[in-house]
Amino acid sequence: MDEAGPEIGRLIEMMAKLPGLGPRSARRAVLTMIAKKASVMEPLARAMAEAAAVVRACRVCGNIGSAELCAICSAPKRATGVLCIVEDVADLWAMERGRAFGGRYHVLGGVLSALDGIGPEELRIPALLERVADESISEVILALNATVDGQTTAHYIADQLEGANVEVTSLAQGVPIGGELDYLDDGTISAALAARRRF
Amino acid sequence: MDEAGPEIGRLIEMMAKLPGLGPRSARRAVLTMIAKKASVMEPLARAMAEAAAVVRACRVCGNIGSAELCAICSAPKRATGVLCIVEDVADLWAMERGRAFGGRYHVLGGVLSALDGIGPEELRIPALLERVADESISEVILALNATVDGQTTAHYIADQLEGANVEVTSLAQGVPIGGELDYLDDGTISAALAARRRF
Repeated sequence: MDEAGPEIGRLIEMMAKLPGLGPRSARRAVLTMIAKKASVMEPLARAMAEAAAVVRACRVCGNIGSAELCAICSAPKRATGVLCIVEDVADLWAMERGRAFGGRYHVLGGVLSALDGIGPEELRIPALLERVADESISEVILALNATVDGQTTAHYIADQLEGANVEVTSLAQGVPIGGELDYLDDGTISAALAARRRF
Repeated sequence: MDEAGPEIGRLIEMMAKLPGLGPRSARRAVLTMIAKKASVMEPLARAMAEAAAVVRACRVCGNIGSAELCAICSAPKRATGVLCIVEDVADLWAMERGRAFGGRYHVLGGVLSALDGIGPEELRIPALLERVADESISEVILALNATVDGQTTAHYIADQLEGANVEVTSLAQGVPIGGELDYLDDGTISAALAARRRF
């Protein structure tokens, strides 16, 4: 993109490295920005700098926010006593979009992975065990992804919590709402059959 | 995205409005940025502000750049005398990626469109006619999109240039390189047949 000068070329290169964007969509996004410099490009640059200046991880749960305690940990109306364990902040946001959970979270920051050399000490599992002991938690909900690594991590955490006098539950597995059986994988169908309920 | 504070929420909203991004990919992009705040987010915000500060349209051709004359109009080794007419800056960049054109450009800034109320005076057509008269142009290449509006615009420009003692050409139409006949539309096949050449 030398024909547009080094500043634009650099911006396109950096945008192209964001997930979900490639060289082509980065070019399109930058041209759109430039066409609306005052209403899109300058405000976006400002918003990005402002967000970078304030964003930080919550000291308690690992969610991101702009203060030492995130918006969820500092909300008085969120129930204490029930902790929902998620892999990362994106999963926490997904749970919040479901609007079904009124308690607090604990973000692990990843899952156990022998391949990638990620053990319990790389995750926020010790902090979780401390919270369970200190905050008089009655239930820990394992909302981890239904992947091999996610489930390995779930089993590890359940093992660690044994004897801590806390109920450990996990999200139900089955047919997604709106799901068509013909398009579901065999694992989901057999999990849904094994967990069938009285209608 | 209230759970992440107003700054992050605003940033995600603004990112989601860029072409090629939606709410989901904007969330992913912002979380990636935050995870690499010093190496991705802060440099990107700076690059965007810097680009916004310097970017401007070239006085002569309408390309974008960081000076009054764009990099192409100010390059001494680019041939004068041949002008390539493109709809917008994205098309100019596409032509440059082809590395086949060594002359200069003229960016219209759109195409004629009765539906959208875009007439010749909304585009840079008067400026084009002036350039053809002033710069002793010998050939004008119409590199407009092969759409109805693009071809209408091409015909309009060719009409305006009649009597200006300039050769008016347009990009060839035919089978794209690597194209399979079975997947081409009828219009392309009949255009390629009509323009067939001795092998």
